[in-house]
Amino acid sequence: MKLYDLPASPNTRRVRIFIAEKNLEIEMIPIDMMSGENKTEEYLAKNPLGRMPLLELDGGTCIAESIAICRYLENEFPDPPLFGTTSLEKAMIEMWQRRMEFQFLNPLIDIFRNTHEMWKDRIVQIPQVAEIASEGVKEQMVWLNQELEGKEYIAGGGYSVADITAQCAFVMGKAAVGIRIPEDLSNLDAWWSRVTSRPTARA
Amino acid sequence: MKLYDLPASPNTRRVRIFIAEKNLEIEMIPIDMMSGENKTEEYLAKNPLGRMPLLELDGGTCIAESIAICRYLENEFPDPPLFGTTSLEKAMIEMWQRRMEFQFLNPLIDIFRNTHEMWKDRIVQIPQVAEIASEGVKEQMVWLNQELEGKEYIAGGGYSVADITAQCAFVMGKAAVGIRIPEDLSNLDAWWSRVTSRPTARA
Repeated sequence: MKLYDLPASPNTRRVRIFIAEKNLEIEMIPIDMMSGENKTEEYLAKNPLGRMPLLELDGGTCIAESIAICRYLENEFPDPPLFGTTSLEKAMIEMWQRRMEFQFLNPLIDIFRNTHEMWKDRIVQIPQVAEIASEGVKEQMVWLNQELEGKEYIAGGGYSVADITAQCAFVMGKAAVGIRIPEDLSNLDAWWSRVTSRPTARA
Repeated sequence: MKLYDLPASPNTRRVRIFIAEKNLEIEMIPIDMMSGENKTEEYLAKNPLGRMPLLELDGGTCIAESIAICRYLENEFPDPPLFGTTSLEKAMIEMWQRRMEFQFLNPLIDIFRNTHEMWKDRIVQIPQVAEIASEGVKEQMVWLNQELEGKEYIAGGGYSVADITAQCAFVMGKAAVGIRIPEDLSNLDAWWSRVTSRPTARA
């Protein structure tokens, strides 16, 4: 197995943390998007959408989409479980994973794409999209802080893929678009210390 | 179990089709968003994000997020499988499900929200967002048509949750924003006839 990686991307980071939590050794192949390595004929044959991460299995089959890759690894290497074990746990973790994507990760990516120099000549940037997303993320942080009352991790049980998505979202917020978790959101701030102090956080 | 439903929403339609494919009987409770039934204290206690669909279990536990609900039902009622059975099938179906969300369903919802009268006083509408999303959806239809060469269903095997997401996206495209599958995209058009002629398509 090998993983085609885009080191700075929050989506590939999700998979790298997941792999580290599973204690797996998987060869990483960095793809340089800026020089168009993701648009070569060879890469597009593996993923026609030209995106990373991409997991190539030994037989050549390619799995795209970060969460699909994580779920494949979960099924192949169940310990420690990061998607839950009972039917209800699995549903709750999936609910929270998706909430973390839709309320935080995707809007933060939208802010980055609509404001950052790197995307200036690649897409039509609409600053108003970034402004609206930025307000939304700040509001949703207040909500998440309430939801974390009495909980150590996002989905209520142990550390899960929902935490991985959230922490990669907030790493992006802090490093790329200047949105940080306010210290007065004490539950969220404590959760942030908890997840960023894990040995896998810098994978 | 009961499902809080928003009859016109593509996300709730995904769950209704899923339930029909599983041949389950689940009580449906329509929630009227226009009169604010999703913002009452009682509803927000069930889902603080105020969204539908929402599955309430007999013990009172609530599961939000359409795909989390579908996965819960898949785990509880495995036949017929709609998320795959082997580890690789599950990964490929998840990959395709997510592609159908990100390339079609979410952009089509964006178009609707940014242009439709219904959303005029609810959000800041940005017509340019709808224009860009509309171009993207049309381009991606060409890609999906190529991907469907030699395949009956989106993920390559039998009918799956990836087809459900795609068909709900295209129902929305046709009914709400005037984007139809062009007849010359013959693989996509044949797939569309195939899925819309299933007895569950109007669930």
